[in-house]
Order: sequence, then C-alpha cells, then structure tokens
Amino acid sequence: MLRKCSGSARKGGRNAELFLNTEVKMNIGIYGYGNLGKALERNCALHSDYNLVGVFTRRNVSAVKTFGAPVYSAESILDFKDKIEVLIIAGGSATDLPVMSPSLAEHFNIIDSFDTHPRMTEHLNNVNSSAVKSCHTALIATGWDPGLFSLARVYMESILPQGNTYTFWGRGVSQGHSDAIRRIEGVADAKQYTVPNLEVYKEVLSYKNPVTDARKMHIRDCYVVLKDGADAGEVERKIKEMPNYFAGYETYVHFISMEEFKREHSTIPHGGSVIRSAHSADESRHNVEFRLQLESNPEFTSSVLLAYARAVQRLYKEGDYGCKTVFDIAPKYLSEKSYEDLIAHSL
Amino acid sequence: MLRKCSGSARKGGRNAELFLNTEVKMNIGIYGYGNLGKALERNCALHSDYNLVGVFTRRNVSAVKTFGAPVYSAESILDFKDKIEVLIIAGGSATDLPVMSPSLAEHFNIIDSFDTHPRMTEHLNNVNSSAVKSCHTALIATGWDPGLFSLARVYMESILPQGNTYTFWGRGVSQGHSDAIRRIEGVADAKQYTVPNLEVYKEVLSYKNPVTDARKMHIRDCYVVLKDGADAGEVERKIKEMPNYFAGYETYVHFISMEEFKREHSTIPHGGSVIRSAHSADESRHNVEFRLQLESNPEFTSSVLLAYARAVQRLYKEGDYGCKTVFDIAPKYLSEKSYEDLIAHSL
Repeated sequence: MLRKCSGSARKGGRNAELFLNTEVKMNIGIYGYGNLGKALERNCALHSDYNLVGVFTRRNVSAVKTFGAPVYSAESILDFKDKIEVLIIAGGSATDLPVMSPSLAEHFNIIDSFDTHPRMTEHLNNVNSSAVKSCHTALIATGWDPGLFSLARVYMESILPQGNTYTFWGRGVSQGHSDAIRRIEGVADAKQYTVPNLEVYKEVLSYKNPVTDARKMHIRDCYVVLKDGADAGEVERKIKEMPNYFAGYETYVHFISMEEFKREHSTIPHGGSVIRSAHSADESRHNVEFRLQLESNPEFTSSVLLAYARAVQRLYKEGDYGCKTVFDIAPKYLSEKSYEDLIAHSL
Repeated sequence: MLRKCSGSARKGGRNAELFLNTEVKMNIGIYGYGNLGKALERNCALHSDYNLVGVFTRRNVSAVKTFGAPVYSAESILDFKDKIEVLIIAGGSATDLPVMSPSLAEHFNIIDSFDTHPRMTEHLNNVNSSAVKSCHTALIATGWDPGLFSLARVYMESILPQGNTYTFWGRGVSQGHSDAIRRIEGVADAKQYTVPNLEVYKEVLSYKNPVTDARKMHIRDCYVVLKDGADAGEVERKIKEMPNYFAGYETYVHFISMEEFKREHSTIPHGGSVIRSAHSADESRHNVEFRLQLESNPEFTSSVLLAYARAVQRLYKEGDYGCKTVFDIAPKYLSEKSYEDLIAHSL
C-alpha cells in the first residue's frame, strides 16, 4: 500500500541515527481545544524533546485562553505546513475526525484518537489514502481503548492462543451514558460511572472462564440531579429501561443535590482491565492482566497521544509513510531514551 | 549497524504480503531440551502456522524421549541450515547462550531468552555481529523478564514520564535461591518462593510512592527438607544470614517432610507485576499495571518465545537483519491473525 515518494525514504537496521538529534526539539501542534486539547497542551511540557508550536481552534481565537501556548484559528493551519512536524488532532470521532484526519493528513503527519470501532477500517483506508499520496505518516485510534488495550489484546492472544480475553471498563465516567441521562425530561445534570462487577472479575482471575457478556461484567452507577418538580420514580424507570444504554444492566440511580454533584462528581476518572485467562499445552493456567486506574481520562489519553507523536515523527523520518495503528509501532519508537539506554536499563 | 546483503532486502508500508502465505507453515527447531525445551515442544502445537522440525540435544539422542518431535544431536544442527526458518535456543544464560547464540546466528535466524542483565549489551553486540554478517535475524532476551516486563516498563515510562516504576516478582519459585539453600549442609531438598510484600504493593496502588527497594518489596518463603540428623536451627540461621540471597529480606523457613515436599511443591509457578505510579501535568494520578499469574514458568516463557518466533521470521522476510530485542518488534508481527482481522476485531 506504500506509494514510492520522490523524497529520500530511508530504512535502517537498528536506527541508531534516529536517536542522536535529541537536542533538536520536535515541533508539534494541537488541533482542537476541548478537554483533550487542554490536556495535550499541559502534558506537552513533560516531554523535554517537544516544542508546542500552538493550538488551533474553530472558535473565536480571542475567546480561547490557553495555559500559555499561542492560539491560532483552525483556518490558518496550512500556514504551518513547514512549522509543525506532528499535528495531534483532538476532535470527536462522530463527525470531526472522519473529515479532519484524512484532510489534514494531506499536509501534515497526524495522530488521532478515533474510537468508533465499526468504522475503523474505513477510517484507516481514508487516512492512508491521503497520507500515502502526500508522503506523510499518520497514526489513528491512539489512546487507551482503542490503543493500549488493543495492544494488550494482541500481545496476550499471540502469546496464549488458547483462552478467553476479558475487557472490564471502569470505575469511570461514561460520557455517552451521562449524556443519555441528561436528555431525560426532568434531569438537571447527571453522571454515570461504569463499574466492573467485582464478582465476575474475581471469577476471571480464578480461572473460572465465565461467559463474556459486557452486561454481566459491569454495573452502571448513576448520580442524578433533578429539576424542580421532576418525578424521581419516573426518571429512574426511564434510565433503567433505556435500551442499549441501561436495559439488561445492573443499574443504580442516586438522586443528589446540585451542591453535592458539583462537589463530588467534578472529575473524569476512568480505567479498566484487559485480562487473558488461558492455559498452555500441559494444561497449566495463566492470567495476564493489563490494568489502568486513572484519575483523569483526558490527562491520560493525552499522555498516550504525546508518546506516540514521537513514534510518528520517527517513522516519518525513516520514510515509512501511510496510515498506521499502534500495532505497527515498535515500542522503542515511543521512548525519549536512546536505544543503548533502553537495553542497559529497561530490558 | 545494518550491513547491506546481496539478497533482496525489502521494506514495505503495511506489509500486507507478509500475512498472505498463512497456509505455508513456518519450520522451527528447538535447540536444547530441558524444562524450557520441553515446554517449547508442547506449546508449538498450539500455533497452527508452525511446523516443528525437531529438537536438538547435546545428550545422547537415544536417551531423550520427546512428546513426539524428532530428536537430533546438537552436533548435526548445520545439516538443518536450509530446513529451519527460526531456531529457538533453550539454553542457560550463564554459560550456554553467550556461546550458542552468536555461533548459531551465523547460520540461522535465532531467538533466545538471555537474562543476565549486566551482560546484555555485550550479548546484543556479539549476536548482532554474527547475524549482520550472515544476513540473519536474531532476537535476544525474550520471555517475561526480560521480555514482557521490559516492554511494560518502556510503554509506561514513555507515556507517563513523571512517576515511579515498581517491579514485584512472585509468588513464584526462584531457582537460584532454591539452589542456594540446597547447597547448605544438612539440606536434602528445598524450594524458595519469592512473594510480593502485599503492604508495599497496596501502598504503590494507593499512590503512596514508597521507596523502591527489592528487599522491602518481597518476602522469601522457604520450604526445606532436612537430611537425617541435621540441625534445623543451624540451617535456618544459615539461610537467613546468607548475603545477597536472604540477608536483609523478611525470610520464612518451613521444615517439611520429603513426602509433603513432593506432594505440595512439585510445580514451578511464577508471576509478578510491573506498576507505573505517576502523575500527569494537572497532578491527577494514574496507575498502570501489567500483571502475570502463571502456574508454570517454563510453559509461559515458551509461549512468549513461540509468539516472537513468528516475528523473527517476518522481519527476516522483510530483510531486516541483525540482532533485535522486544523493543524493536511491532506488535502486529507476533499475531497469527491478518492485519485486517486485527483492525476489525482487536483494535
């Protein structure tokens, strides 16, 4: 799928050259400035080899206040073609990324966090087409699920072909479920926490290989602020019976005051666990688990995107163009450390 | 570090071709037939794309009984130069692998589980030199530590630059510590379990960032069978005061009968956990954990080597020669699934 470009596409063995220029910082841009964009700006500073050129917004530039980064209009992005080495796109998967990522990959090396599973192949092909044509490197579906959890699944299943893979999400805020509750008449505000069912979790770790059904593996815990005069019983019934979102799940609804809501439910924690419970040829049993416990979902997601931005730039420098996923990226490309350092201290 | 070879070194974008010939099985060989070699033979059968050519032993061929694989003398290995695509070397790190791996990499694509950390760079350079000269692909230090735990450290530290990394080992059998006890006068047999200190483990998961000292993070649990007339108190004292191995550790010594020893301590379980406890720019805290719970250490280690054998063959087919580590290998190379399947079902 790689179109040969006229530039000097280069491939090396252990790529020692790649890691020499650590004093030259990588210029990155952030396209979109919501929760994720803000977290990207903040966390950029933790990487000593990054230089944040600016954030790009579709809103009125003068109305956007950053933590210090220059703000530019999204419309001016093409003026930065030669100034940004990797553009991190912080947009939504529903309508933003399917348009933004292929279009920006015509001019930039990009990275996005597209997470609509049924449209993944389509998105990959669209972005690949742009990136290959323009000789850029793109990386889609980066974050923790899809992203790190996907990696965990592939490593675990390749190593242990005989077994079951379980994904537990939470305890954490599901934005989609919280939105769904807020759309119910009489609801002033709401937050829904997805919580792993601890009994099923323990069964998995005890090699009991329970049936894999997301509805049995999770509990839905809802904190709801009612509008004046709303019927609590009616709101609770509507939540619990909502198809796709809550019906079939063990669901708890707690009505609380706006004060308590603001005090206790202002953060966006999340996390989860991927477990491969398997046996090898002599019937000995093995559990492999990758677990996240995150106080802030956007902060952690931005951290994943930032580490992978380094990989995108390195692949681009090697002439490895087209659209990639986390499956294509050798772990060494993420690290700020030299290869020699990784061998000596991390292996 | 890559020497250009006369063969057709080829590099592609998404390498779709690589995954087409799944009906042609990969011919692998196992060099060494101890616990690990046996586990490799058994688990080979779980990979439908592998064909085990045979096991190679330094012992008398007629004295070696396999689970069905042909047995050959280690001396005849060069007769198989064109019949084996990847040779898995199941030797010890102390004296076997430093000699075997560089020498066999002159004739084969190889993979080993070298685990002597202070000599890692030296081993890498030796194997690389052979593999580059002969245009082969080699992979060293594969298993779970070094191996999967190394990967976990690199992913986690790249993503979360601000924090501490903790490695807990166990509950599992330490062969080295068991051997050390067996060398004490009056000991008939012994097994030592390394056990994570649960209090420290909980402190780590509670973001308390305790001091990282292997001696405080682990407990040493010893099961000892005495010879007739041996002095239990003296044996216990010698164990607990043994420098490097036990001194400074919380150590428990249990004296048991040979019957109980054989009944309860015949397996080789192991496991452990790598945790990155970190905070991001807004001071929100995150724990990332990779955890193994293994009923058989050699069975699991062999499973890791087998999955990576697939990667070695693929890199070789791409013309990517030289000595690699797990840091160099993109996750997709481990999987038996097609790239399209990974995107559709694992991402």
